Amino acid sequence: MSDSPAPIKIIRKQTGNFLEDFQPGQIFRHKGGKTITEGLFTTFTEFSMSTHPASKNARYARAYGYQGLVCPPGLVMLVAFSQTVEDVSENARANLEYIDMKFGAPVYVGDTIEVETKVIGLRPSASRPNLGIVHVQSTARKNIGDASEAIVVSWQRKVQVYKGKESAEVKAFDLPADDIEFELWIPPYDANAKLAELAHLSSPDSYFEDLEPGSRIEHSRGRTITDEHIAMTAILDNTSQVHCNQYMVDLNPKQYVGGKLIIFGGIPFSLCLGLSCPDVGDNALGDIIYTTGRHTAPLQAGDTVFAATEILNKRDYPSRADLGIVETRLFGYKMVRADGEQTDDAPEGWKRVQIFELDRQIAVKRRSHYA
Amino acid sequence: MSDSPAPIKIIRKQTGNFLEDFQPGQIFRHKGGKTITEGLFTTFTEFSMSTHPASKNARYARAYGYQGLVCPPGLVMLVAFSQTVEDVSENARANLEYIDMKFGAPVYVGDTIEVETKVIGLRPSASRPNLGIVHVQSTARKNIGDASEAIVVSWQRKVQVYKGKESAEVKAFDLPADDIEFELWIPPYDANAKLAELAHLSSPDSYFEDLEPGSRIEHSRGRTITDEHIAMTAILDNTSQVHCNQYMVDLNPKQYVGGKLIIFGGIPFSLCLGLSCPDVGDNALGDIIYTTGRHTAPLQAGDTVFAATEILNKRDYPSRADLGIVETRLFGYKMVRADGEQTDDAPEGWKRVQIFELDRQIAVKRRSHYA
Amino acid sequence: MSDSPAPIKIIRKQTGNFLEDFQPGQIFRHKGGKTITEGLFTTFTEFSMSTHPASKNARYARAYGYQGLVCPPGLVMLVAFSQTVEDVSENARANLEYIDMKFGAPVYVGDTIEVETKVIGLRPSASRPNLGIVHVQSTARKNIGDASEAIVVSWQRKVQVYKGKESAEVKAFDLPADDIEFELWIPPYDANAKLAELAHLSSPDSYFEDLEPGSRIEHSRGRTITDEHIAMTAILDNTSQVHCNQYMVDLNPKQYVGGKLIIFGGIPFSLCLGLSCPDVGDNALGDIIYTTGRHTAPLQAGDTVFAATEILNKRDYPSRADLGIVETRLFGYKMVRADGEQTDDAPEGWKRVQIFELDRQIAVKRRSHYA
Repeated sequence: MSDSPAPIKIIRKQTGNFLEDFQPGQIFRHKGGKTITEGLFTTFTEFSMSTHPASKNARYARAYGYQGLVCPPGLVMLVAFSQTVEDVSENARANLEYIDMKFGAPVYVGDTIEVETKVIGLRPSASRPNLGIVHVQSTARKNIGDASEAIVVSWQRKVQVYKGKESAEVKAFDLPADDIEFELWIPPYDANAKLAELAHLSSPDSYFEDLEPGSRIEHSRGRTITDEHIAMTAILDNTSQVHCNQYMVDLNPKQYVGGKLIIFGGIPFSLCLGLSCPDVGDNALGDIIYTTGRHTAPLQAGDTVFAATEILNKRDYPSRADLGIVETRLFGYKMVRADGEQTDDAPEGWKRVQIFELDRQIAVKRRSHYA
Repeated sequence: MSDSPAPIKIIRKQTGNFLEDFQPGQIFRHKGGKTITEGLFTTFTEFSMSTHPASKNARYARAYGYQGLVCPPGLVMLVAFSQTVEDVSENARANLEYIDMKFGAPVYVGDTIEVETKVIGLRPSASRPNLGIVHVQSTARKNIGDASEAIVVSWQRKVQVYKGKESAEVKAFDLPADDIEFELWIPPYDANAKLAELAHLSSPDSYFEDLEPGSRIEHSRGRTITDEHIAMTAILDNTSQVHCNQYMVDLNPKQYVGGKLIIFGGIPFSLCLGLSCPDVGDNALGDIIYTTGRHTAPLQAGDTVFAATEILNKRDYPSRADLGIVETRLFGYKMVRADGEQTDDAPEGWKRVQIFELDRQIAVKRRSHYA
Repeated sequence: MSDSPAPIKIIRKQTGNFLEDFQPGQIFRHKGGKTITEGLFTTFTEFSMSTHPASKNARYARAYGYQGLVCPPGLVMLVAFSQTVEDVSENARANLEYIDMKFGAPVYVGDTIEVETKVIGLRPSASRPNLGIVHVQSTARKNIGDASEAIVVSWQRKVQVYKGKESAEVKAFDLPADDIEFELWIPPYDANAKLAELAHLSSPDSYFEDLEPGSRIEHSRGRTITDEHIAMTAILDNTSQVHCNQYMVDLNPKQYVGGKLIIFGGIPFSLCLGLSCPDVGDNALGDIIYTTGRHTAPLQAGDTVFAATEILNKRDYPSRADLGIVETRLFGYKMVRADGEQTDDAPEGWKRVQIFELDRQIAVKRRSHYA
């Protein structure tokens, strides 16, 4: 190859959109898409500490009518959500709220997920001229063009996005969310399937009959997140630099607690679901909807995450005598040195800081039918 | 979803059994089970530094008569053993001994492993009223209900378990171990298979003829374990908090050397097998039995692990002229700062600390038949 | 098992060759071989930050005529190169140059790669009696003996190797490189395939028409490498201790900047390719040849890697109207504290250090035919 001529033009690529770039009704067909490999599946399913046998044990999954190991809802969310980051939130300050995250078809190893997002709202900040809130609705489909094509998850989110130029004029708008028709797929009940013979593989005390409205379950396990989060974020194609570029942090360390990278919120989202699994998830046949959810404090490498679930309500599942619906509120928290701000729910010298909250409805098996 | 009512009942889940919970002859059918994905396979096979071509190279594995890449024995042990942790040793102080760990059918990617454990002994501590020793026998099967169903490994172990209440009365018992009928599956020898054409893929000097009783091989490579061990332990579904919950350590740092998490013993177990592989394992067609083994010092992130193998004895393999049995003793060790306790076998300023020991019998190819 | 007799013979295994061991025309058939699992595929494809849809999205890959997800060229290089380390460079001081690295057949999950190396040159150092340069040519094949057998990559490299004994006499030699016949496989163009319907999945501005000779693209993303590199190096079977044995570093810390392990050069090689992907790789259908390349500074855990690409030249692709060839030079760099050596291209207090350089020719789609 010949010598390089002196470059005449330096091109600095910008990625992501700024507040003034979002248009009413605009559709993003996100880049990439993602096929679920066994590497991706294992990394996240096991990181989450999920104990659900349908995500661990192919014999169990097939006996229930699944095609094979089932991706936990946290993994479906991570793969779908991450595809929207470059277009929607690469230039965001914070993700404010998850709204009406509804699940559809089960996701298996080998499925390919692709996502579209519609811009349905924008509101400039009254007090901060360089910021505003963008409201989007995203839909993730699997296996487009194949007989197995189906919606796997849809959701809305509100995200606080920076302007590219502070002087840019932006107009507020507010469109109704689309009514997207799809349903959670749950394996049909077969009284002859002898599923009780597999009952020892899931936890014995998390059936519909066990979950008591008005109770709060403090899940017993905690998990320390290491700088593994950098690789995990890359595996998800989440392109936000605040999760993986330490040099950017070092340039401006005061903006980041302890001069450390921020952990992508989807990671504790998935971990809290997993930590709650032995007590509320092991006998669920699906997560129906997360009506609202938010991150309430940031996480960094070294933090240990715990979770708790409040059982809010429970009711019959329409036309499925074998199941019930349980309304829960999932909390994530971390324990930090108190520095004089001791809280009652923590040992001396420590305080408990809530990091996450999710209103979550699940379809849970009845012991009467399955054990 | 409606607002949450004030919770009226806090539920703190306890997991695992205490000394007083173990009953003579009691059977645990462990939860979960585990399907070997390619993600799990790669994480552990490669972490272990194994060089065995049957675990690296599908062409080689199939030529020998395996269905595909073969899980190394360390991985089979890790997957099976970890399933027993919640029921047997979540409340343990220490794992004291592995006994008669025997291997059976080969384990492939896609196989599902499920484990049962029988309680065969208990002895309260004479000197420490809050402790005792539990003796269990575990059996791991693959693909239950399928034509390929088979036992893959069985073993006994003795583990020191805490009482839940110090005042609880426990009675000693001692049952005979079950005689579990199964054999190590070894690919049949086919003189026409031209396996010598693949001989360059394994090490040239680890055939039966090469291994000399009375010699000790210091394996050349070392491997530093990072805090990767936290994720690895989670991938295995090992639920013991001492491996993954840094907050628990921070609450009580004096109990943990350097205030750091302890590495799950199965990880150095597997790593020592791998480090020894180029010198004693590359031309083995199976690990027959580990008659006894134990961890002799704990490991933490940052430690570098080395291994050595003593060749104790060798003899013919019954009815297989192509193979021989080699009895070995595998040692693991770490190098630590001497702090005035210099040992002869270490450079100045360092001492060598043994961490692991395993009496291991392997079925090794004869060069005369394979190269 | 009987007690071990006192060992009578200590065997310390040596691995790798020294300068005096290399003979003119000598062929190494490297050990192991490697089957690409989904675990390996995901770990490296995603670590690299590649955005190429053929490596992310099986629907896209199949629509283009591939059998499934395609290994990025950086992964093919890593798997092939690593197999040569034990024989060629386990006792090396530095890898000096990559030469004429040419790609052939695409590599898919499930393919098995095996590598041979021929020694084609040797030159003792005039000034340093314990060193010399070895010149080798390596060829990696997939699926030997199968209908899909094919060369996937061949390359030469020059590597600075230590003598085993400084007194050993070595003679210089210089053989011509073999002319190895194979071609880059590129999916045939099918005007009826409606590939434009998938154009939203790759970046919109990296077609042949977009890449301007004389320009230099500063790729927008950086990635901090953690001590994850230790596990990654093990996954690749790269056996060099300088990447994974912290004790060896601690014995002689002055030889290693900051007393830290050195990151295997293949890791930033692969990462720089990935960082450049959204801007120059997303619409390439193949990497044709890397005519020359080298590492220009070492990397260690904690360093953040950036990349830039100079577009040197472009021309038609023979007999493929849908493609063009783009000649590029890929640079990798890291940002380090300036310590008084401020460079113009870095923020105050920092300097930019080049770590890698690769002359790279790629086959790029024309927008006229694909979008």
